[in-house]
Amino acid sequence: MRRLLLISNSTLHGGVYLDHCKDQIKNFLTGKVKTVLFVPYALQDRDGYADMAKKAFNEMGYELESIHKQESPPEAVRNAEAIFVGGGNTFRLLKTLYDEKVVEEIRKRVLQDGVPYIGSSAGTNVATASINTTNDMPIVNPPTFKALGLVSFNINPHYLDPDPNSKHMGETREARIKQFHEYDDSPPVLGLREGCMLLVEDNKATLHGRTDARLFERNKEPKEFSPGADLSFLLS
Amino acid sequence: MRRLLLISNSTLHGGVYLDHCKDQIKNFLTGKVKTVLFVPYALQDRDGYADMAKKAFNEMGYELESIHKQESPPEAVRNAEAIFVGGGNTFRLLKTLYDEKVVEEIRKRVLQDGVPYIGSSAGTNVATASINTTNDMPIVNPPTFKALGLVSFNINPHYLDPDPNSKHMGETREARIKQFHEYDDSPPVLGLREGCMLLVEDNKATLHGRTDARLFERNKEPKEFSPGADLSFLLS
Ligand SMILES: [Ca+2]
Ligand SMILES: [Ca+2]
Repeated sequence: MRRLLLISNSTLHGGVYLDHCKDQIKNFLTGKVKTVLFVPYALQDRDGYADMAKKAFNEMGYELESIHKQESPPEAVRNAEAIFVGGGNTFRLLKTLYDEKVVEEIRKRVLQDGVPYIGSSAGTNVATASINTTNDMPIVNPPTFKALGLVSFNINPHYLDPDPNSKHMGETREARIKQFHEYDDSPPVLGLREGCMLLVEDNKATLHGRTDARLFERNKEPKEFSPGADLSFLLS
Repeated sequence: MRRLLLISNSTLHGGVYLDHCKDQIKNFLTGKVKTVLFVPYALQDRDGYADMAKKAFNEMGYELESIHKQESPPEAVRNAEAIFVGGGNTFRLLKTLYDEKVVEEIRKRVLQDGVPYIGSSAGTNVATASINTTNDMPIVNPPTFKALGLVSFNINPHYLDPDPNSKHMGETREARIKQFHEYDDSPPVLGLREGCMLLVEDNKATLHGRTDARLFERNKEPKEFSPGADLSFLLS
């Protein structure tokens, strides 16, 4: 029984870390989970990051241990009751997951053993088919852009609508995703605006949170979905 | 004698393609150059892109041939009098330069034979040490992020100051570049705001255009430079 909570962003503007999704996290981590294994690899300051995550999870009623303080990261994954992968730089995160040899371990735990997986931002990107639709700067080069593959489509976290007042000539987010879809066999991309998240429970996917999501598919018009929407068709 | 004109962006808001840099391009391409070799690999629609570039260069008084219509791209580079690499997606551009086996050819022509190189946006990114500081989405994976290395530092084109009114929680451009500089041996990054460009003539580098540039170096405070500034120290 695959269980994923894929969050667009960890902090809303003016808000507190994980505050906008703490109800969903508590609902998601059912009574059995006592300790969450935290993966801080997306940021350089792992100690500081783990302290912040620990505080937020303690307040929700869970213990939190960071993988970077464990002797063997793969062993830590094998023993995890639940996994939370935090945001930061997606390239650094994916490279470190490969370097630490936990990609296959996380896949197995989540897909075979049903260990709940929470991802935020970069942690959501790496849960999908690939990191081809991250917004991050490629500051390091992972061995491949192929990610954990816990779902077969891609997500664009922090999805941003075009700003009609902008004079900046960089591509809009939609234009970037459309360039991805110029390639054959490119999977759907779910654009999660800040404030929304996707709950996956086995073959059921539902949009949660307070903002809408925008779905992009190759050779199709984008579609909008509101919280509560059933997106299970993406899982087939 | 190395000669490079590295432009932040090809079109200013509300403007015409290459209009804001056409004086610099004409000054840069001295009397000897009749035909410019265009590299349209950063966009999918190469024919349309070449038509647009041809129109702009014809109006400046130059012929333009696109590399994608030549039988042998490396041979086309070997015969080029000047090279213009257009913008689009940096990952697609660099991957195609490697696929078409023109990376070493362009390096040789520019660094050994003194063939003038004009880059815009992605075409500027690939001229530098690496594409680690592109803004683009990693829609395809080049064999390496190492680029043409026509200069030993990095550039961030379309450099963007933080928007004080934004409620979006994605990293600012400056925060992204600072993450790059968390790594040892990461080279300087010159943030070229839209409207400015860097002219390199052998060991002399000068800022041109109408906007300022912001220089980021590992473990240093960022510095601002205005058009006319001598940035030759970056070349040593
Ligand atoms: Ca990020
Ligand atoms: Ca671009």
